Amino acid sequence: MTQRPYNFSAGPAAMPEAVLAQAAAEMLDWHGCGMGVMEMSHRGKEFISIYEQAEADLRELLAVPPEFKILFMQGGGLAENAIVPLNLSRGGTVDFVVSGSWSQKSAKEAQRYATANIAASGQASGFTALPAPASWQLSAGAQYLHLCSNETIHGIEFHELPDLKALGCDAPLVIDFSSHVLSRPVDWSRVGLAFGGAQKNVGPAGVTLVIVREDLLGHALPACPSAFDYQTVADNQSMFNTPPTYAIYMAGLTFQWLKQQGGVAAMERCNIAKAELLYGYLDRSAFYVNKVDPAARSRMNVPFFLRDESRNQAFLDGAKARGLLQLKGHKSVGGMRASIYNAMPIEGVQALVDYLKDFEKEQA
Amino acid sequence: MTQRPYNFSAGPAAMPEAVLAQAAAEMLDWHGCGMGVMEMSHRGKEFISIYEQAEADLRELLAVPPEFKILFMQGGGLAENAIVPLNLSRGGTVDFVVSGSWSQKSAKEAQRYATANIAASGQASGFTALPAPASWQLSAGAQYLHLCSNETIHGIEFHELPDLKALGCDAPLVIDFSSHVLSRPVDWSRVGLAFGGAQKNVGPAGVTLVIVREDLLGHALPACPSAFDYQTVADNQSMFNTPPTYAIYMAGLTFQWLKQQGGVAAMERCNIAKAELLYGYLDRSAFYVNKVDPAARSRMNVPFFLRDESRNQAFLDGAKARGLLQLKGHKSVGGMRASIYNAMPIEGVQALVDYLKDFEKEQA
Repeated sequence: MTQRPYNFSAGPAAMPEAVLAQAAAEMLDWHGCGMGVMEMSHRGKEFISIYEQAEADLRELLAVPPEFKILFMQGGGLAENAIVPLNLSRGGTVDFVVSGSWSQKSAKEAQRYATANIAASGQASGFTALPAPASWQLSAGAQYLHLCSNETIHGIEFHELPDLKALGCDAPLVIDFSSHVLSRPVDWSRVGLAFGGAQKNVGPAGVTLVIVREDLLGHALPACPSAFDYQTVADNQSMFNTPPTYAIYMAGLTFQWLKQQGGVAAMERCNIAKAELLYGYLDRSAFYVNKVDPAARSRMNVPFFLRDESRNQAFLDGAKARGLLQLKGHKSVGGMRASIYNAMPIEGVQALVDYLKDFEKEQA
Repeated sequence: MTQRPYNFSAGPAAMPEAVLAQAAAEMLDWHGCGMGVMEMSHRGKEFISIYEQAEADLRELLAVPPEFKILFMQGGGLAENAIVPLNLSRGGTVDFVVSGSWSQKSAKEAQRYATANIAASGQASGFTALPAPASWQLSAGAQYLHLCSNETIHGIEFHELPDLKALGCDAPLVIDFSSHVLSRPVDWSRVGLAFGGAQKNVGPAGVTLVIVREDLLGHALPACPSAFDYQTVADNQSMFNTPPTYAIYMAGLTFQWLKQQGGVAAMERCNIAKAELLYGYLDRSAFYVNKVDPAARSRMNVPFFLRDESRNQAFLDGAKARGLLQLKGHKSVGGMRASIYNAMPIEGVQALVDYLKDFEKEQA
């Protein structure tokens, strides 16, 4: 088959070609069992083996300590915006660091169940910079502090998770790592719970990863649906309700692919190189601009603008003609956005940079 | 390819081979767009066209009237057990007809949000018969009446939905039709809301169908997560949160396959023939038994027992050797269960009946 186009979608996003090819080959018959993965009982030995392998591989890839449970849930990050406070807030106060659209939505949804305190906000900067941890207004007795460690829309990323204890705060840290999970290691000593929809860096939409320290289980509010009570989910190995079996299988194939690539450390090196290549070009150009504070730029989501926005449509049309897809920015920000997740090879980023140069020359 | 085994799983369950083959062929490139379906933004024109076609086909197949919204959600039937009362109960009283495991679970979960009144129960019969509507103890002012129109585990089905108005009840009827959706028509004049997980008769686990009359929207309790508020879901064409795009695509391929087979009326004729073939043999045999009242036997899920249960493992081993898979009964009921959903051809039921005969002879 000829070269597939490079797909810069923010999510659902490009998946490794090898993963898709394997899934296609196994669609009607998984490992000679006579059934496709979609057709298996989730309680049968075939699917249980797929599930257990996926969980073990994820634990290995992210070096998840044994005191954390790994849950495969449904509903994505937006559902977790309710599910986290239903499980962890105890109806008390929760602190939020608002660094972009996603953490803003999380804070708003939490108000249904808890008192949501905005400990810090990057809104004054138009979400182009992260408020420094020393400036955060933390609540005494907060049940947890929530932040979004990579804001997909604003292209802003925490390159170091805050050490809440050093800030005098005993509350657990909750991170929404949907759009950079598995692109870099996680410092679990600083985290109580991490959640993420799979549809950016892991697999298809429809499965949500939740990695939660065991001592945080068992405190759900009475209004929490059983299917979303972390304790119930953990007690049933994510099979209280029928899990999204095929999405878990695809995530599992992606985990195996990541291990073949050298794991998260190797992916991180590659992601750093990809980000340097793209930001480096944007910063040297007078034609394009990225407005995010260099210290907080996301390695995964690179929003950028043509200084002359009247050329936007010509830019997108030309990109598509070169096999560079889904570069239009989020409607709330405008401009362009290149999402360069794990599945995007450096060759794809190079092809984008080559196009950026050629388009600039052509329009000069 | 040689004949695939016949898969009698109760769910996730067998899918039409043609649907799986098409999905495999389109895995890396859907209709020449350069992306697989899993890799598409849910807001892009390609996925929107898949979504709209799926919705229109489902509306056509089930003759859903225009005053009903079709929603594609996540969490399956067990999540809907909470989501329905969160949206419809207004914290008041809800009536339940308990006809098996699923309706029993629904009534229990609803107690978080409402007063759950058991209007009728088949428990005294071991869930082998349906309580007659004339005997139901309906609450004055109930917000709705819930029943499970096909109990997957107990193999018991409502062959006619109750006419609540004729019973002097103005409340809307809510049906859990997970395990027989699209196997027969639905009389929408008697229904306010129908929900069902897709993983039995529609497609892969991870997408839930909700079909709801518009006047029932907009009454969610404050504790209802935004992602599960029917009004919010409807206002956003099921894209408030990222929908399970691939599961919707697979459901859509199944809808197209159903239309090619002649639609729901043709499927119903086939399902009647399949059920008559299997129950007919079981009833004529002194070796096997089905205990369900013939008037309420499910066309989809056929639990049966060997009168001599010491032969169970030999039966299952022999079945597997003949390419007849996943016949073991649910652990709460025991014995055997053959689920013969739309995707099971009559040839598969005939192969099962042939095996039932041969095993009986061989063991005699």
